Amino acid sequence: MFESAEIGHRIDKKTWKAREPELRAALLEMQFRLLREARFAVVILVNGVDLAGRGETVNVLNEWMDPRHIRTEAFGPISEHERRHPEMFRFWQVLPSKGHVGILFGNWYTDPVSAHALGHETREHFVRRLERIRQFERMLAAEGVLLLKFWFHLSKKAAKARMKELQDSPKTAWRVTPQEEHNLKHYDEFIRVSDEALRKTSIGEAPWLVIEGSDPYYRYLTAGQLLLDSVNRRLDQPLAPPLPAPLVPETRPLDRLSLLAAQDYSRSATRKDYEDRLETLQGRLNGLSRDPRLQQLSLVVVFEGMDAAGKGSTIRRLTQALDARFYRVIPVAAPNENERAQPYLWRFWRYIPKLGHATLFDRSWYGRVLVERVERFCSEADWMRAYGEINEFEEELSDAGVLIVKFWLAITPEEQLRRFKERSETPHKNYKITDEDWRNRDKWPQYEQAIGDMIDRTSTQIAPWHVIASDNKHWSRLEVLETLCDRIEQALKARG
Amino acid sequence: MFESAEIGHRIDKKTWKAREPELRAALLEMQFRLLREARFAVVILVNGVDLAGRGETVNVLNEWMDPRHIRTEAFGPISEHERRHPEMFRFWQVLPSKGHVGILFGNWYTDPVSAHALGHETREHFVRRLERIRQFERMLAAEGVLLLKFWFHLSKKAAKARMKELQDSPKTAWRVTPQEEHNLKHYDEFIRVSDEALRKTSIGEAPWLVIEGSDPYYRYLTAGQLLLDSVNRRLDQPLAPPLPAPLVPETRPLDRLSLLAAQDYSRSATRKDYEDRLETLQGRLNGLSRDPRLQQLSLVVVFEGMDAAGKGSTIRRLTQALDARFYRVIPVAAPNENERAQPYLWRFWRYIPKLGHATLFDRSWYGRVLVERVERFCSEADWMRAYGEINEFEEELSDAGVLIVKFWLAITPEEQLRRFKERSETPHKNYKITDEDWRNRDKWPQYEQAIGDMIDRTSTQIAPWHVIASDNKHWSRLEVLETLCDRIEQALKARG
Repeated sequence: MFESAEIGHRIDKKTWKAREPELRAALLEMQFRLLREARFAVVILVNGVDLAGRGETVNVLNEWMDPRHIRTEAFGPISEHERRHPEMFRFWQVLPSKGHVGILFGNWYTDPVSAHALGHETREHFVRRLERIRQFERMLAAEGVLLLKFWFHLSKKAAKARMKELQDSPKTAWRVTPQEEHNLKHYDEFIRVSDEALRKTSIGEAPWLVIEGSDPYYRYLTAGQLLLDSVNRRLDQPLAPPLPAPLVPETRPLDRLSLLAAQDYSRSATRKDYEDRLETLQGRLNGLSRDPRLQQLSLVVVFEGMDAAGKGSTIRRLTQALDARFYRVIPVAAPNENERAQPYLWRFWRYIPKLGHATLFDRSWYGRVLVERVERFCSEADWMRAYGEINEFEEELSDAGVLIVKFWLAITPEEQLRRFKERSETPHKNYKITDEDWRNRDKWPQYEQAIGDMIDRTSTQIAPWHVIASDNKHWSRLEVLETLCDRIEQALKARG
Repeated sequence: MFESAEIGHRIDKKTWKAREPELRAALLEMQFRLLREARFAVVILVNGVDLAGRGETVNVLNEWMDPRHIRTEAFGPISEHERRHPEMFRFWQVLPSKGHVGILFGNWYTDPVSAHALGHETREHFVRRLERIRQFERMLAAEGVLLLKFWFHLSKKAAKARMKELQDSPKTAWRVTPQEEHNLKHYDEFIRVSDEALRKTSIGEAPWLVIEGSDPYYRYLTAGQLLLDSVNRRLDQPLAPPLPAPLVPETRPLDRLSLLAAQDYSRSATRKDYEDRLETLQGRLNGLSRDPRLQQLSLVVVFEGMDAAGKGSTIRRLTQALDARFYRVIPVAAPNENERAQPYLWRFWRYIPKLGHATLFDRSWYGRVLVERVERFCSEADWMRAYGEINEFEEELSDAGVLIVKFWLAITPEEQLRRFKERSETPHKNYKITDEDWRNRDKWPQYEQAIGDMIDRTSTQIAPWHVIASDNKHWSRLEVLETLCDRIEQALKARG
C-alpha cells in the first residue's frame, strides 16, 4: 500500500503560499454547504506511522475549517472502564450526525493492528477483526456516511531521519516519546501488519488514501484537497443512487401457512397456578440478577410482538423482580430528528448496558425489518441488508459478554381484535388504542410474512428468537419468565 | 434459518393441477426472454437436507423449461485430479454465460459445510471459507449474475419419517443410500453448521431461499415460482442501476511525482555481460523448473508494462529456458464476445495452471484497473472494487499452491518514443505499432496515476509487484530472470 508514499513527495514554499488561502476558502465553503444541506455525515479516520504528522494535520484542518462543526476525538488504549462495554461502543458514541465532520484519531484500526503487530493476537483473530471492520464500514457507507480513511506514511529511512532531526534539537526533542522510540524499532512488523489491514479494508465504498508525511506542505495540501474533493463530489450527487434491488419475491408461501399461524395458542394457566408460579419465578429471576457471576455479563432482553400482544405488561412482571439500579427499560417508537441523522443502529447502541447491567427493549432494532419494511419507510435494499447487519451487531455484543434474549409475543388476529375492543371500551385503557393500531391490523398478512422472514434470518445460535404464544396472558408471562431464567442460568454456567 | 420450513407446508392436488400448467408456460416464456435479451446469467444453487427432494426438483425444472439452455452440473467430493487446481476452478469452468441458466447441484457450499460438520475443519477455517464465498458471490452479483440459492429443508422428524417411508417399500428402498443413513444420524450437527453457513452468506444481493421439502407439490411450485418471479423481476429492470460512485478524487499527487517517475532508469548491462549472465540465469531457471518439489507448486507470471516496454521479448528469454510441456504463454487482448458474457476474471481462471505447470500472462486481469479504467470501458465503481477482488483472487490461488510473480516493465516516455520511431522505421517491426499505441501515449499521465494506484493497492506480501526499470533491455531481462529465479527458489524452500 505504501509504494507511492516512499518516493519523496514535496511541495515548495511558493506553491504552498499560493494554494493554501484558496484551499482554506474552498474548505470553509464546502463545510457550510455540508451543514446547510445536512444530507450526510463525514467521518475522517487518521492513522499512520509515528512522526508522519498526523496530529499536525488534524490541527491544520481544524484551523482551516470552522471547528464548531468538527468534532475531533482521540482514542487511547481501551481503559478498564471502557472494557465493560463492547469494543465499538465508544466509537458509536462519537459518530457525527448528518451535516457534521468527525475526525477520529486513534480508532477501530488502532487496537487490531497493534495487538497483532506486538504478537498479542494471532493472525486469525486479526483477520476476523478486519472482516468485522469491513462489515461495519460497509454498513456506515450504506447508511450514507462519507468515510475518508487517511494513512500518513513515512518510509523507515524517513522515519529514522525525522526522529533524529527532532532529537537533535533541544527545542523539539520533547516531541519524541519513549513509546515512539520503541515503535520505530518494530517498524517492519508494524508496516507488514498495517499493509495487510489497509489492503483488506480498502473497499470500493471507503478506500484508504495514503499520504506521504515527510514534507509538511505536501501532506497538509494533499489531505485538505482530498477532503475537499471527496465531500464536494458527494454533495454534487443530487441523491444517493438507488442500490440494486434484491431478489426475494413476495409470492411465498404458496399455501399461506405462516410460522405464527403454526403456533399452538390453546395453552393457558389458571389464575391460581399463575399466581403461585409467578412469584416463584420472580424470586428465581431476582436471585439470578444478584449472582456475582453476572458482573461478567450483561443482559439485553428484546420484546417484539403485534400491537396489544402484552409487551408492556410482561415487562412489568420482570421489573417487579429486579433492583432498579440493575436495569433500564427502553420503549422504542419512531426515531426522532436526532436519531434520523444517524445510522439506524445508533439509537440502540446508546442503550447497550455495561457488564453487570440489563436493558429491556420494548420494541427494538427489529423495527427495521418489520414496520419499516411493511410501511416502506426504508428501501427494500435497506431492509434486506439489515438481517446481516443485525446478526453481526448481536454477534459483536455477544462476544463482548452481552446475553441477548429475544421474545416474539404471538397472538392470533381474533385475540387482537378482542383486546382492541376491550381497550376502546375501557376508559383507562382507551389511550392505548389509536387509529394506527387499526391500520396496522389491516396489514396482518404483510406483517406475518415479515415476521417469518425475521425469525428465519435472525434466530441465531447465540441469539435465538423465543416465539411465545400469548393469547393467554398468564401462560405467556410464565413462559417468558421461565425462558429468561433458563437462558441466564445457562449463560452463568457456561462462564463457570 | 429453518423455522418457517418446519411447519408442514403443503399444496393439495387440485391446486397443483390448476397451477402447474400456468407455471410451466410462464417459465418457458421467461426463459426465452432471458435468452433473447442475454443481459445476465442465472446461477441456481441447490442445497439442503438429504431426501428433501433436491434432485427431483432439479428434474422437474429441467422438464418444465427448455433443457438446451439450462446446464445442470452435479459436483461430488473433490477428486485427486481436481485437487491439482484451486478449489473454485471447477466452478468457474461451468458458469453460464449471459442469457443462460446454470444449476449447480453440489457446489461451493458443500465441502465447507460437510468438512466442518464432520469435524475435519475448525470453526475458524469454516468462517474464513464462508467469508471467501461471500466475497465471491458479491463479485458475481456486481458483475451482473443473478444468483438464486435454494435450500430444501426437512425437520429431523420429517427426515426420519421420509427415510422410513422409502425403506418400508421394496419399490423405493433403493433410494436410501448408506451415506444418507449415516448423514441422518448426524442431522443436528449438519443443521447447526448449515444454519450458520446460510446466515453468514445471506447477503442482500443473494439471500438464501429456504423451501420446506416434505410435500412434492409445494416444493416444485415454490421453487418454480421463486425462479420465475426473480428472473422476471430482474428482466423488468431496464438496466442494472448504477452503484454509488466511490470516493477517490483524481487530484493527486499534487506535486506530480509518480512511482514510475521515481525509478532509476540509468542502469544498464554491456552486451558481453548480458550474454554471459543471460545463459547462466536461463540455466538456473531451467534447473528450478525441473525441481521435483515444483510438482507441489504451480507458477503464474504476469507481465504488464506500457506499449513497447519489452514484454514479449522478455517472455521469449524465459521460454527459451523452459520445456514446452511445462508452460503456456497467454497473450491478453480485448475480451471477445464469449468472454464479455462472463464475469471479467472468468477468462483468466481458464488458464490457471495445475500443479507442476506454469502460465505466463502477456498482460492480464490488471487490464481492469489500467486500460479499462483509463479508457472508461468500465464504471468507476467497477474498477474500484476490482482491487479487492484481484487481491482475493490472488490469495485464493496462492493458498492453492500457485506462486504469483508480477512484473511491471517500466520505461520512460522518451524511451517509448524512441522505440515507437524505431518500429515505424523498421519494416519487420512495423506491424507492432498502431495508431492506438500513439493514442495511449497521449494518456501517459492518466496511465501513470492508474499504475501507481494499482501497485499501491495490489502489491501484496504473497504477490508483490516487481517494478523493473526497462529503458535498457539487457538490464531489464537479467533483472526479470534473476527475480523470477529468486522467487521460485524461496517458494521451494518454504515448501521444505
